[in-house]
Amino acid sequence: MAALFRGSRNILLRWTKHADFAFVSTRSMASKTPVGFVGLGNMGSPMAKNLLRNGYPVIATDVFPESCKELQDIGAQVVDSPAEVAERADRILTMLPSSPNVIEVYTGPNGILKKVKKGTLLIDSSTIDPAVSREMAAAAEKMGAVFMDAPVSGGVGAASLAKLTFMVGGVEEEYNAAQELLTCMGANVVYCGQVGNGQAAKICNNMLLAIGMIGTAETMNLGIRLGLDPKLLAQILNMSSGRCWSSDVYNPVPGVMEGVPSANSYQGGFGTTLMAKDLGLAQNTATNTKTPIPLGSLAHQIFRVMCSRGYANKDFSSVFQFLREEEGQ
Amino acid sequence: MAALFRGSRNILLRWTKHADFAFVSTRSMASKTPVGFVGLGNMGSPMAKNLLRNGYPVIATDVFPESCKELQDIGAQVVDSPAEVAERADRILTMLPSSPNVIEVYTGPNGILKKVKKGTLLIDSSTIDPAVSREMAAAAEKMGAVFMDAPVSGGVGAASLAKLTFMVGGVEEEYNAAQELLTCMGANVVYCGQVGNGQAAKICNNMLLAIGMIGTAETMNLGIRLGLDPKLLAQILNMSSGRCWSSDVYNPVPGVMEGVPSANSYQGGFGTTLMAKDLGLAQNTATNTKTPIPLGSLAHQIFRVMCSRGYANKDFSSVFQFLREEEGQ
Amino acid sequence: MAALFRGSRNILLRWTKHADFAFVSTRSMASKTPVGFVGLGNMGSPMAKNLLRNGYPVIATDVFPESCKELQDIGAQVVDSPAEVAERADRILTMLPSSPNVIEVYTGPNGILKKVKKGTLLIDSSTIDPAVSREMAAAAEKMGAVFMDAPVSGGVGAASLAKLTFMVGGVEEEYNAAQELLTCMGANVVYCGQVGNGQAAKICNNMLLAIGMIGTAETMNLGIRLGLDPKLLAQILNMSSGRCWSSDVYNPVPGVMEGVPSANSYQGGFGTTLMAKDLGLAQNTATNTKTPIPLGSLAHQIFRVMCSRGYANKDFSSVFQFLREEEGQ
Amino acid sequence: MAALFRGSRNILLRWTKHADFAFVSTRSMASKTPVGFVGLGNMGSPMAKNLLRNGYPVIATDVFPESCKELQDIGAQVVDSPAEVAERADRILTMLPSSPNVIEVYTGPNGILKKVKKGTLLIDSSTIDPAVSREMAAAAEKMGAVFMDAPVSGGVGAASLAKLTFMVGGVEEEYNAAQELLTCMGANVVYCGQVGNGQAAKICNNMLLAIGMIGTAETMNLGIRLGLDPKLLAQILNMSSGRCWSSDVYNPVPGVMEGVPSANSYQGGFGTTLMAKDLGLAQNTATNTKTPIPLGSLAHQIFRVMCSRGYANKDFSSVFQFLREEEGQ
Repeated sequence: MAALFRGSRNILLRWTKHADFAFVSTRSMASKTPVGFVGLGNMGSPMAKNLLRNGYPVIATDVFPESCKELQDIGAQVVDSPAEVAERADRILTMLPSSPNVIEVYTGPNGILKKVKKGTLLIDSSTIDPAVSREMAAAAEKMGAVFMDAPVSGGVGAASLAKLTFMVGGVEEEYNAAQELLTCMGANVVYCGQVGNGQAAKICNNMLLAIGMIGTAETMNLGIRLGLDPKLLAQILNMSSGRCWSSDVYNPVPGVMEGVPSANSYQGGFGTTLMAKDLGLAQNTATNTKTPIPLGSLAHQIFRVMCSRGYANKDFSSVFQFLREEEGQ
Repeated sequence: MAALFRGSRNILLRWTKHADFAFVSTRSMASKTPVGFVGLGNMGSPMAKNLLRNGYPVIATDVFPESCKELQDIGAQVVDSPAEVAERADRILTMLPSSPNVIEVYTGPNGILKKVKKGTLLIDSSTIDPAVSREMAAAAEKMGAVFMDAPVSGGVGAASLAKLTFMVGGVEEEYNAAQELLTCMGANVVYCGQVGNGQAAKICNNMLLAIGMIGTAETMNLGIRLGLDPKLLAQILNMSSGRCWSSDVYNPVPGVMEGVPSANSYQGGFGTTLMAKDLGLAQNTATNTKTPIPLGSLAHQIFRVMCSRGYANKDFSSVFQFLREEEGQ
Repeated sequence: MAALFRGSRNILLRWTKHADFAFVSTRSMASKTPVGFVGLGNMGSPMAKNLLRNGYPVIATDVFPESCKELQDIGAQVVDSPAEVAERADRILTMLPSSPNVIEVYTGPNGILKKVKKGTLLIDSSTIDPAVSREMAAAAEKMGAVFMDAPVSGGVGAASLAKLTFMVGGVEEEYNAAQELLTCMGANVVYCGQVGNGQAAKICNNMLLAIGMIGTAETMNLGIRLGLDPKLLAQILNMSSGRCWSSDVYNPVPGVMEGVPSANSYQGGFGTTLMAKDLGLAQNTATNTKTPIPLGSLAHQIFRVMCSRGYANKDFSSVFQFLREEEGQ
Repeated sequence: MAALFRGSRNILLRWTKHADFAFVSTRSMASKTPVGFVGLGNMGSPMAKNLLRNGYPVIATDVFPESCKELQDIGAQVVDSPAEVAERADRILTMLPSSPNVIEVYTGPNGILKKVKKGTLLIDSSTIDPAVSREMAAAAEKMGAVFMDAPVSGGVGAASLAKLTFMVGGVEEEYNAAQELLTCMGANVVYCGQVGNGQAAKICNNMLLAIGMIGTAETMNLGIRLGLDPKLLAQILNMSSGRCWSSDVYNPVPGVMEGVPSANSYQGGFGTTLMAKDLGLAQNTATNTKTPIPLGSLAHQIFRVMCSRGYANKDFSSVFQFLREEEGQ
């Protein structure tokens, strides 16, 4: 998805804009020690490349040899397991599909924690349950290492262009060290508090995004059925209390805006299946904390049904298309 | 509610800002003929007063004599029925609680249409079903009169300060004439297309507003339970894709913003019972047009339940309070 | 749909079983005066035929000449308008698609009430908003006639076999007279109280039916995904507190039961579009009475979405199919 | 809750009625070896007592010494840890509050699997995630032991009276051995297939129960608002397609039935907080298997909100009371 986080002049947040990047990387060039990287998938691979581009030696591993080969060809050192990465690097990033992979990579038989050195900084950019992040942090602490969660907003394109946004949770003293690396891969880095809070912030944002998108799709569809022109309705909403990101930046109705997935047959963007996954995490954390989320929960169900009706790989704004078809069509 | 519509530099919309007001009213002073007004309740009374303040003679009626008396004391001429208003004015505004009242006032035995003069401009600012607006327009047309719907955003405060926003539906040729009057009572006047479209726009906006508010309340509550600071979470959402009017202008969590109902025990603002009424209209129009509105429908149910749990007269952002209480409290 | 109402030995309800039919009709044979019938559609036509079969002269009308012709060929007298029916019969049945048709047939320019004789018994078997039934009853009363609502459960098959169930609302003194006619067309006749209560009972039953069906579909689908055999799961539910009509009489999962729509590609039965219509009535009455119906409302939305996804004419138990498809299929 | 499972003459299910109990227990009296029992809470304690009553020596443990003391006084041997139980018994029952407790009791440092003897039969009657049951079964298998899940329907009363229903998952060859013990504590034992299926069946049943109960409450409330007598409406539903366990056995409306929680201020029965817990399990398994459960999910949210509005300890049928209150009360 095009950057979820836009520029802000907010002074309460400690973050680093990409504009500062050249300075930061120059300053630390002299001391660049190797950075470990585990998980070279669609997201991890361009992220690791950006570390290389910024002059960091990268020691990488992945379960797929082809992914490793590609990174090796442009200068990374490839090793056989997360444990070996941990032997050779004292700053390690991980970028993995889901909670079980994170558990395996950190605490499995060949996991990072089997060989981690004291004082190592571990940064996990996977999107997972905050409770798992906290478990990993506790396990790392026992070994004398520091674990931070730093999930991202932004898709493959943002990863390639180093335009990701990182939401970071972990001990405050280590935040600067994490920031040094993350600014090589992203445009915004936001500190969210204790470990797990990066995940919590991402889950919360995406839940509200999902609700706003379905709400916008319903509203636009209802207005059109009632005889309103879609562009005019979008304008009215956007100058009014119905305004939201999905109505004014990413409108789901074809013809209302340009340069968004709805203008391109819902290609690209943020896939429905990924939104369903994030809402599953929101649902699980809400269930576990006994928090009622009636709309979030229904939004989860709607994207889940869409996944089984052929919308899995379309942008999540295709919920407009899912809802709009009329009887008899 | 504090103005739902904020300033905009949009050039596609034909509207009139309050800044132009002095000029407009001066220009038309010479030709000021009487304006009829039916419905002198909490909203109608200050609206009629603003017409008087702008130099329009007002001929008014209401079922409650006290409401009439108050307006009479400051210069309005009071008559006994809508039909008598129609005999004496060729521009009439109506501001009534619900569809049945509108039907009665226009088509009842002492209704406006019993005595309406050809060419009379009828403007209904009630919030009702767009289908009823269209019925009234058809009935008025048979009598040679013109009916427009012009529901408002903004509450009693905005009505007093002439800061309402009007969403206007009706034939385009009459829009300027309507605008002349509406600018005496509001800061923004938006033309929405054919008759009924003003109602449609208002219903759509408020449905999306309701969804966004509940979504924001759920999200903030979940984030807090997960350990995030509410102010920080609001900042993250507001610079991100979770952003909406309810998160960045009217945040429902006490302590996050000042000057909003959540900072004042949910006093003032836009009552839950009024939101439930508007969602009932959205529900009815959606049912009648066979339009699916899963989140809008659930939002309606939630505000309906809140009405029976003691939240009827609190601001609708109190849904945060409704959802947040923990087991055992 | 196969009869919604099954036999019961309940003594509190005043109803008449089809077994008593021969006696009832014999007894009144001598005095058989003409019965009017307005609305000869899929349901009305077989109902009128059953009146003819029971020896009642029928005076009928419909907007479609072909429908009239068919009934005329088997002995009915066809006239041009509901008003003419009212001139010639003092017992009239109406069976129409929706509220506006009922309003037109009773109160329109050629409507029944234009010519109705004092003391006429009017029985409306349409499924409509109870509020409209009550309006019609009030209008009839002004003309000295009596209006009762008597919506049916059971589809075209039950109508042909005189196996319908009638839920009757209206003044108690007229119930016996209504029952005499209704037992010619149905197996069960249930008195529900004042006028409108027949509609209310039908709407309530169908709302709970809709909830139970979707709930059963979700539950069976979840159980299957968790590894349970569908037949075994149905047995467990049916001997347990999950039991409902949709699980034990009309199971939506192919292969669990025979002789139900799920065993026949969801052909026949009760169409999704009809269920969506009934839920629309439930929604409207709930909105108008400020009654929260969270599950009923969501059930309405689900069947509404199904209508736009190609399920409009399948039996409503096809919600299992709608929910079950897996990602990637 | 009063027995969720009622008698059935079903021949497909292999189960054992309590009527056979005397015979079974007599037959096996000679060979009675000790049975281990871990978890002596509200449910576990009466279950263990029933084993003692049936002549089985019991070796028990619990984290609360008082619970142990009570059982010791009536003949059980109390030991210090699950591991010690495993050393002394080759049939062990566990009855624990939630998944983490089960994981601790089986795989923790003093857990059963630390000392379990080959061939031991482990039966877990806790209600937990089926995935955890399967993990425990795999861990037990590595030690040469057999794990079965056997969650119960029925509350403390049913536990005391040996009237529970057990839904059993596990290898078929061990089912008879499990059945011998379970019939001492329950009236019905149902074999559901492979390990985890007992949990799956219970979760599915309770989800459909929850949906049916809320649906019944909404429907009864709507009917009452529309003017129907509650008893009459219940009768109509119960002879019709709206019929379900919650309408005909456990009606939530005070005054409709006797001997149910709604007749007793919603005291006793099955607490809302327990239903919310079971729906949380349903939600988690549905999320993990990517199964859409729109009504189940909304039911979960409704009971969750009720928990925070003071209904946590009332019977779950109090959802009628939660929904029914009118504005202004």
